[in-house]
Amino acid sequence: MTSDTKVLLDHGSGGKIAHSMISEMIVPLFDNPFLSKQDDGALIDFKGTRIAFSTDSYVVDPIFFPGGNIGDLAVNGTVNDLAMCGAHPLYISSALILEEGFPMDDLEKILETMSCAAKRAGVFIVTGDTKVVPRGKADKIFINTSGIGMVPRGVKLSGSNALPGDKIILSGTMADHGIAVLTAREGLGISLDIMSDSVPLNKMVKSLLGTLPRDSVHVLRDPTRGGIGTTLNEIASQSGVTIRIKENDIPMRDSVKSTCELLGFDPLYIANEGKMVAVVAPEAAHEALAIIRREEYGKDAAIIGEVAERVGAEPSAFSRPGYVVMETIIGGSRIVDMLTGEQLPRIC
Amino acid sequence: MTSDTKVLLDHGSGGKIAHSMISEMIVPLFDNPFLSKQDDGALIDFKGTRIAFSTDSYVVDPIFFPGGNIGDLAVNGTVNDLAMCGAHPLYISSALILEEGFPMDDLEKILETMSCAAKRAGVFIVTGDTKVVPRGKADKIFINTSGIGMVPRGVKLSGSNALPGDKIILSGTMADHGIAVLTAREGLGISLDIMSDSVPLNKMVKSLLGTLPRDSVHVLRDPTRGGIGTTLNEIASQSGVTIRIKENDIPMRDSVKSTCELLGFDPLYIANEGKMVAVVAPEAAHEALAIIRREEYGKDAAIIGEVAERVGAEPSAFSRPGYVVMETIIGGSRIVDMLTGEQLPRIC
Repeated sequence: MTSDTKVLLDHGSGGKIAHSMISEMIVPLFDNPFLSKQDDGALIDFKGTRIAFSTDSYVVDPIFFPGGNIGDLAVNGTVNDLAMCGAHPLYISSALILEEGFPMDDLEKILETMSCAAKRAGVFIVTGDTKVVPRGKADKIFINTSGIGMVPRGVKLSGSNALPGDKIILSGTMADHGIAVLTAREGLGISLDIMSDSVPLNKMVKSLLGTLPRDSVHVLRDPTRGGIGTTLNEIASQSGVTIRIKENDIPMRDSVKSTCELLGFDPLYIANEGKMVAVVAPEAAHEALAIIRREEYGKDAAIIGEVAERVGAEPSAFSRPGYVVMETIIGGSRIVDMLTGEQLPRIC
Repeated sequence: MTSDTKVLLDHGSGGKIAHSMISEMIVPLFDNPFLSKQDDGALIDFKGTRIAFSTDSYVVDPIFFPGGNIGDLAVNGTVNDLAMCGAHPLYISSALILEEGFPMDDLEKILETMSCAAKRAGVFIVTGDTKVVPRGKADKIFINTSGIGMVPRGVKLSGSNALPGDKIILSGTMADHGIAVLTAREGLGISLDIMSDSVPLNKMVKSLLGTLPRDSVHVLRDPTRGGIGTTLNEIASQSGVTIRIKENDIPMRDSVKSTCELLGFDPLYIANEGKMVAVVAPEAAHEALAIIRREEYGKDAAIIGEVAERVGAEPSAFSRPGYVVMETIIGGSRIVDMLTGEQLPRIC
């Protein structure tokens, strides 16, 4: 049981405190083999047909931001969670919690965006729910999307499948979504044309898994809340390996980089909403990179590191179970821990 | 497009205004054959296996009430929506939106209740999400549950299947949940031991569909938000029939009845969370009633009315398309319209 007596913003961060609440409180209570895997969605066998099932609520503030709004974020987010399980996303639910007085025009705009996002991703929004709470009891609009996808035969992805020697591919520039939302929220007067990267990744995943030998792709994850740093830590921890990345190889827009420097944010922990981390067998890594780069949303993809070693019983300072080590631009080494605390609440 | 420029509490009522928003704005935007059926969940064919998929968010106030809390409400609600599609509920997701500062003890109590409710219904909570918003940006805790169930071969239920002559069965007393929540919320000082009826109905549905000839059960619905009155109107409207019910035959606890009289509420529009409306072929109605009454949560079941006639092109005052007519205790006839406005916001 967590030692906090009240829920903190950190519990929703996707970082360390959120993980400890999930693994110490939620997983034991809901104990079952599906949940305890702690991947982006659950894999369920339905009479020989494997389906992936995932859910996410969206509470982003502000609800409209450069490059998108809460509507496409909600659709793309669940589409991507399913895709990261290796599934073809097919059906999505949409459950709205609205604050009394919310402008009907904004609602229509958001629903139109959801409809477009669903078409773009090739999924149907098949069921829904609408609740309204009195003024002041919610902040404008919260959206939950849950989704179902079909997992092709032979696809077997999990955060626990990373193997020593595997290459780590990031499908594009880091930290765009978080910085776009932040600048919109705080009215910082920074106008750097930083746009959210909210896009569906299912086509990219389909190309990757459909072209490469099935057993060469080991892990797929979308580094949303908690950023690349937290996602790599999850993989390292689930697989019991050390991951080494090179700061210099991580793609990042100059405008995002300078905004992070200006505001003191570490981009490794900033949310992405249209990026994928792929852990791929070394012999397939260059083909994987080429496939991703041919995709509309993968032009800036890069190999950013590799899985170093499986961690034994006698961990040393730089090879403790589940560690991520980054070779910095200036040549040193730094341990990249899971996000502690919350840099940016309500980023998705 | 609805003529309101702002979202009203009524848009979340499950009644007339909510229906017009759904049918005029949401269904056209998300246009697809699954959604347009407007049943409690979507039916999806997965390579010959039919699954039902449903979602609901819970925003009940207060979160703890006599007979339950938001946790079992959230599990039972989605279990029941799936059961009303004729499905065996199997897998549930749980997405929490928490207000910063929410007591961890309360969260644990709610999660324990969810875990117990899932066990009681025989479903697994397989995937989840936790978001936290700053103090004042949400009211304590909101829970979304989505669910997947398997629909047995041959089962074909829909609100549009009611046929003239069919009998209407209600599985127990009306309005318990709404009145229990209301008395808890308002601190009315009424202590009548009115408890919420929040229970899972999947076992009852399984007994019913497993025993009766498959084609004799035409519609199942759980009359939650909007109550029996709204549910019967939905069925009447979807099937294009007139439904006649007898006030005297509708089971209701004396304490609930007197509370409704005292406060001026019409119990026909008060939410139930463990009741089922079954529309059954006349020749099977008495066996259906016997089956339901043998179930733990069906002891007070009764036949409350019947489907009168399919409505033709020339509707009269009492037989307009989709009308519900009630023979009152004093012998008159009253049209029971769909709920207009919202008697009790945040009842589920």
